Amino acid sequence: MKKFSWKINHISTNTNARTGEIITPHGKIKTPAFIFCATKAALKSFSTIQAKENNTQIILSNTYHLMLQPGSELIAKHGGLHNFMNWKGPMLTDSGGFQIFSLGHGSVADEIKGRSSVKRNKSLLSINEEGSLFQSYIDGSFKLLSPEKSIEVQRDIGADLILVFDECTPFHVDKSYTDISMKRSHRWAIRSLNRFNLNLKYKAGFGSSGEQKLYGIIQGGIYEDLREESIDFNLNKIDNFGIAIGGSLGSSKDEMYKVVNYTALKLGNKHPIHLLGIGDPNDIWTLVKSGIDTFDCVSPTRLARHGSALIKGKKGKLNIKNKLFSEDLLPIDKDCNCPTCLNYSLAYLHHLFKADELLGLQLITSHNIYFMNNLMNIIRNAIDNDNLEQAEKQWFS
Amino acid sequence: MKKFSWKINHISTNTNARTGEIITPHGKIKTPAFIFCATKAALKSFSTIQAKENNTQIILSNTYHLMLQPGSELIAKHGGLHNFMNWKGPMLTDSGGFQIFSLGHGSVADEIKGRSSVKRNKSLLSINEEGSLFQSYIDGSFKLLSPEKSIEVQRDIGADLILVFDECTPFHVDKSYTDISMKRSHRWAIRSLNRFNLNLKYKAGFGSSGEQKLYGIIQGGIYEDLREESIDFNLNKIDNFGIAIGGSLGSSKDEMYKVVNYTALKLGNKHPIHLLGIGDPNDIWTLVKSGIDTFDCVSPTRLARHGSALIKGKKGKLNIKNKLFSEDLLPIDKDCNCPTCLNYSLAYLHHLFKADELLGLQLITSHNIYFMNNLMNIIRNAIDNDNLEQAEKQWFS
Repeated sequence: MKKFSWKINHISTNTNARTGEIITPHGKIKTPAFIFCATKAALKSFSTIQAKENNTQIILSNTYHLMLQPGSELIAKHGGLHNFMNWKGPMLTDSGGFQIFSLGHGSVADEIKGRSSVKRNKSLLSINEEGSLFQSYIDGSFKLLSPEKSIEVQRDIGADLILVFDECTPFHVDKSYTDISMKRSHRWAIRSLNRFNLNLKYKAGFGSSGEQKLYGIIQGGIYEDLREESIDFNLNKIDNFGIAIGGSLGSSKDEMYKVVNYTALKLGNKHPIHLLGIGDPNDIWTLVKSGIDTFDCVSPTRLARHGSALIKGKKGKLNIKNKLFSEDLLPIDKDCNCPTCLNYSLAYLHHLFKADELLGLQLITSHNIYFMNNLMNIIRNAIDNDNLEQAEKQWFS
Repeated sequence: MKKFSWKINHISTNTNARTGEIITPHGKIKTPAFIFCATKAALKSFSTIQAKENNTQIILSNTYHLMLQPGSELIAKHGGLHNFMNWKGPMLTDSGGFQIFSLGHGSVADEIKGRSSVKRNKSLLSINEEGSLFQSYIDGSFKLLSPEKSIEVQRDIGADLILVFDECTPFHVDKSYTDISMKRSHRWAIRSLNRFNLNLKYKAGFGSSGEQKLYGIIQGGIYEDLREESIDFNLNKIDNFGIAIGGSLGSSKDEMYKVVNYTALKLGNKHPIHLLGIGDPNDIWTLVKSGIDTFDCVSPTRLARHGSALIKGKKGKLNIKNKLFSEDLLPIDKDCNCPTCLNYSLAYLHHLFKADELLGLQLITSHNIYFMNNLMNIIRNAIDNDNLEQAEKQWFS
């Protein structure tokens, strides 16, 4: 039996929505799936044991952050990140390309709101053909992240699925820069693949504890011709196991839906398609119809830490800190079977946030993780039963 | 079968150490036992489900804190604190007396170090015959905590074991004040018992979800004649299920051991004896020999939040933040079977604290709670097998 494989089980009759399976040495991912962000090798207030109990299929960690702290060699000494953080299931690492964006160009919110000139984190010093030069936010030292370095670090970390090194182009740059950046990212992808195939450390007995597969990344910003060029490159010029859609997706939801839709349709069925950085349930319902197989975003765990519990419907979340819930004996959702909804009232959760008890963060995180996994399960079943539109209406009713 | 009972199973041949069982409607407590502090209805970063998995027998919460936030009526509406915080095992509440000490006189550390004049929390406004007047740290409102009020709040909360209202006398006061305070605490104990026996709210169908038993509290500071008077009062003048040793235990470990020893010896075998606020494993090894049956302290969970993991031996703890552990692939204790030691290296725990990941607090808390329960289990077995001294030597070797 192959250690890695991808197959589509069913494609919707009306849309491009599809169910499938990604097989990895650490288990199967039923798609569409959500990937939770354990950026620095932890799901913030939540353990991987709890994540597993809440039906989590796959988590991701971040090459750049782990390279700085605790360092990838230490992770390799543990036999890889699976052992280091005690997660025995499938795992993905991003390549560090997103940090060129987030540490150099500001946040996604800044981008979407056009605040291109707001105060920047200055830890990205420069980008050139070789790679990106950062100043470590931990000790101020200079760190070059190149395609080769990114792959070697990802080999040490040992996630099942790893990403080529890219520049995640922001929205505020013009088409000319987007084009230059995309072409460089393509050259970086070839260098990433070459270093991946050399597999130096792994062959020497160091590095990752198992086999890995590489994802390419589609760039091109909001420009359809550039996206096409990047699609052609990723489908026909290099050999990837999976393909991720990266870079700027525009300044509005509608623009994002349009960019993702024409990109995903052209990518076809040969690869699992990952959409980087999107986790709003509204967006997920829409974007699975374009054929997106996996999503990732920090939002479910980040919202939890700010006291927001995810719920069905248009509103999408409850602010647990709202006084409205101070005497509410019901759970977040009486139909939810997560450990938090089965055992605790809104009044108790409200009390924990009022009393600054850390348990509150854990319990809302538990609900939000269970919620996202349940959402994806509902979507998978609806695709398989060809009633996705109906399921979506029911979700938002 | 009785809902509540106390029996001694075995008394050591050389010392007064004893094993026993406290039966409550929510289960059995094998003694000597450690009671973990869920002061504000939460074990900080840890859930009650996790506490149960780590062999916890009993937890306690705090009358004064819960009265202010979320209020005892809300807890009663949930059917009591067992439901509110999802803890189905035995539970104790303190009476609020300790807050007269901690909010009025400063911390235990201040006391022991003689810092009686350091900056005080001014939320204790006055103590008189009626009770104690506080100013709420939540909204600044005035709150009178009287024996009657404390018992009614504890009836609402519904813990299995509850305490009479007392003043926890500090160390820096003189014998005359200790005497006056003790005699007032005795009058408060009678008023507590009278209100407990009236059982107004419970009979009206409100308040606690089940039956409860009352503990008296021995006062008298470091003065043996006053302690004797308080022992006589608690043994012969009122009818308590259990007896707690409270108030100042002196300015040194030796003085504490002496006070606890002569007090516990005179209390005999008819009641389970609780020692308020002591949780250092060194102290526990010594004080079980005086016949202490239960201990409580915030230290195992508080130390965890500061990165200290409890270990056997004289040193007693590891500072996880120490650079020494940054590359250590071993667990905190290779012989420990807690979920943290079975699954995570010191290097991973060190990384979590360096990266400010909240999971670190949860994982060290998990170890420290498991550790304390294991310590008490070792002590119980050693008492039953009449080899306590040997077990103690082994622990510290």
